[in-house]
Amino acid sequence: MRMLVTNDDGIFADGIRVLAQGLIELGEVNVVAPDRERSATGHAITVLRPLRIKNVKYPDSRIRAWAVDGTPSDCIKLAIEDLLEWKPDVVISGINRGPNLGTDVLYSGTVSAAIEGAIYGIPSVAISMAAFDNCNYSMAAKFAKQLVAKVAEKGLPDRTLLNVNIPSVDGKDLAGVFITKLGARVWRDVFDRRIDPRGRTYYWMAGNVEEYDGDLDIDSIAVRHNMISITPIHLDLTAYDLIDYLKIWDFKFGDGIDDSNPLL
Amino acid sequence: MRMLVTNDDGIFADGIRVLAQGLIELGEVNVVAPDRERSATGHAITVLRPLRIKNVKYPDSRIRAWAVDGTPSDCIKLAIEDLLEWKPDVVISGINRGPNLGTDVLYSGTVSAAIEGAIYGIPSVAISMAAFDNCNYSMAAKFAKQLVAKVAEKGLPDRTLLNVNIPSVDGKDLAGVFITKLGARVWRDVFDRRIDPRGRTYYWMAGNVEEYDGDLDIDSIAVRHNMISITPIHLDLTAYDLIDYLKIWDFKFGDGIDDSNPLL
Repeated sequence: MRMLVTNDDGIFADGIRVLAQGLIELGEVNVVAPDRERSATGHAITVLRPLRIKNVKYPDSRIRAWAVDGTPSDCIKLAIEDLLEWKPDVVISGINRGPNLGTDVLYSGTVSAAIEGAIYGIPSVAISMAAFDNCNYSMAAKFAKQLVAKVAEKGLPDRTLLNVNIPSVDGKDLAGVFITKLGARVWRDVFDRRIDPRGRTYYWMAGNVEEYDGDLDIDSIAVRHNMISITPIHLDLTAYDLIDYLKIWDFKFGDGIDDSNPLL
Repeated sequence: MRMLVTNDDGIFADGIRVLAQGLIELGEVNVVAPDRERSATGHAITVLRPLRIKNVKYPDSRIRAWAVDGTPSDCIKLAIEDLLEWKPDVVISGINRGPNLGTDVLYSGTVSAAIEGAIYGIPSVAISMAAFDNCNYSMAAKFAKQLVAKVAEKGLPDRTLLNVNIPSVDGKDLAGVFITKLGARVWRDVFDRRIDPRGRTYYWMAGNVEEYDGDLDIDSIAVRHNMISITPIHLDLTAYDLIDYLKIWDFKFGDGIDDSNPLL
């Protein structure tokens, strides 16, 4: 099996190194990841400036690694379009330090890299530790290895991927694996307003998450109960159930615009 | 009506200025937009450094405007959490120079800003010109005004928004308004590999779009036929139809992990 590994915490983060090492038992591991932390970059790609690539040495010489001065999505594109001689069998993004749950996946560089893999038609997985401190990456990597083998064996439908959040506990304290949906998450009090040493105002994004989803089968509830959450994700943002509703809106104005449709 | 306007081409771009001016006839217009071009930033938000805000003067003194040194999504968050005294009735992002069609909406700062509005529960619209040159922003702004009035009147279901692409033609040459779905788009030959003046390699994202969706009712087909495309978008990336499929995957390993589920 040929695997492409990336993350958004940067190529020198603990999570990606433990992950790559854990996956080497399954096949060929290639790491293409940002040269520094690129958290919360969402699905940003770099089009306004060029990108540079550097070889990086990992302790295990079987792992090839490249650092890119771009975003996680840039890394996947560069790896597939240029760096790798072959199309990977699986894209694995992580292990992220911190959860990627619910609506927050939209902001996540980790998840966006896996989405990029799915855009290329490659079975892809995003893996996050649902904690910022005392992250048990070795347990998470062990689960990742099992999951990646399973994904390679069974495949995933076109344009879908898996988003995995793992509670940071000992393996023996895990309560199970739960297939979930994304919960709705809203942040409140998002900005700290502060004054700099020269008396000027600046703002720093902060805030507390406010979950308003009452359902029990959502990702954040699972990890809170010490379960590994696996949420299947798709790429199609079309709200199909609104198409007919919008068709009866009557758009007109004076310039000869009308809503007749020569195609249908 | 109170409107919040942003974009990803930057606060001094033609598209946002023409849009803001066109919307002033509907009510109060507040512009909070990036201080420079932030194209293809996707749903990036800025968490690793602080943000600064500057007042900007628009020619029409009724329009209040602030420039932020962050992403389009940062602008929406800052506007709602801090700058505005009230929650806007509608968020309008655009008018973008260049299309935001199909899968590409995932990379779009313009669309992500409208998604941010929808996360806050505000009816939101992203508007793009399906051209890079000779953009007929005044026609587009005229349509935007009609659409925003309609959205304010009729509302949109929770956690949905509209993605609008407008062909750059004279109003009289418009073939109509078409409610579409997002088409699948894949880019090929994505990177130019070049050599810098010091002999080092760099990569610049480029490439051609390759549409592989055979359907006629997709956004890119509509604009190619001189129609305004309106695609309803939702925020829920959960692939519900995969949940049962994944539940029969049998996850286990030696540390006592099992897939029993104490919650259900």
